[in-house]
Amino acid sequence: MIEVEVKVRADHSKIRPVLMEMGASKIGVEEQSDVYFAAPYRDFAKTDEALRIRSLGGQAVLTYKGPKLDKVSKTRVEIETPVDGAAAAKIFHSLGFLEAGAVRKKREIFRAGEITVCLDKVEGLGEFLEVEIDVEYEKSLDSSRAQLFKFLSHFGLSEKDSIRTSYLEMVLEKRN
Amino acid sequence: MIEVEVKVRADHSKIRPVLMEMGASKIGVEEQSDVYFAAPYRDFAKTDEALRIRSLGGQAVLTYKGPKLDKVSKTRVEIETPVDGAAAAKIFHSLGFLEAGAVRKKREIFRAGEITVCLDKVEGLGEFLEVEIDVEYEKSLDSSRAQLFKFLSHFGLSEKDSIRTSYLEMVLEKRN
Repeated sequence: MIEVEVKVRADHSKIRPVLMEMGASKIGVEEQSDVYFAAPYRDFAKTDEALRIRSLGGQAVLTYKGPKLDKVSKTRVEIETPVDGAAAAKIFHSLGFLEAGAVRKKREIFRAGEITVCLDKVEGLGEFLEVEIDVEYEKSLDSSRAQLFKFLSHFGLSEKDSIRTSYLEMVLEKRN
Repeated sequence: MIEVEVKVRADHSKIRPVLMEMGASKIGVEEQSDVYFAAPYRDFAKTDEALRIRSLGGQAVLTYKGPKLDKVSKTRVEIETPVDGAAAAKIFHSLGFLEAGAVRKKREIFRAGEITVCLDKVEGLGEFLEVEIDVEYEKSLDSSRAQLFKFLSHFGLSEKDSIRTSYLEMVLEKRN
């Protein structure tokens, strides 16, 4: 699956009323605790990949993210499987992977047509808005990305606001 | 968890009546299809580790096995998590892992006290008997292993029959 995704900084108190007006429906709230891994043989920061175990409400998901596919968004291949979080972490440690960093956030999730809207409050980083469309084929990327930027224009946001830096990179930059 | 395990070649038609006599209870039958992975940075054949996705009846389990802990059995650390088998395989491929080989078998599982007894019919290799006790602490290894060899003596089998070669290694040896 390819995740077509745009992330921007956004004050949630200004986003919520517009979402309500548009008739977006709230799907849920998640407390997400993400641990990212570093491979012993490949520098994910250079290859632009990510390997993550996300824990939320007693469940866990292992996710691989491939390199970003364009220059203006966070669009990339994403592969996910549910796991036993503690066991999966132990397996990667045994394989020589190290923990690269952790990201904790509260994510409010809304649905607006085929767009998933996330209001992320990230520990130590502040408030963000992520909008996303999942597509099966590369040929849908351009139209889906255009759709996301059109959606963001309702909030006075545009391509120049797009942040391609991951939360992990931001957390690590802050730490250094 | 540490899996204290002994494997021997055994004609199942001779094992079954003895198991019945002992009052072992049949737990189930599984058609297991295992895919083993090779790491791009470490030779699992040399480090005596294994990484496997086992598919059985629509479900899948990811397993890491550490190096064997003694010279007479297959005792080793084992870490397992349920996964979406296809997604987990894609994640390891994306991380540069290759498929090292596949093992397919029919496994009949019995319980005899705290011993798990497996009658394995392995595609291309024949019939085997695996007996196993799972322990939490290393200090239980010696007594558990002794218990397994005592159990095997009821079938006229002993330490000299113990096979430490994995099914994967046998399959690969046959292929070469």
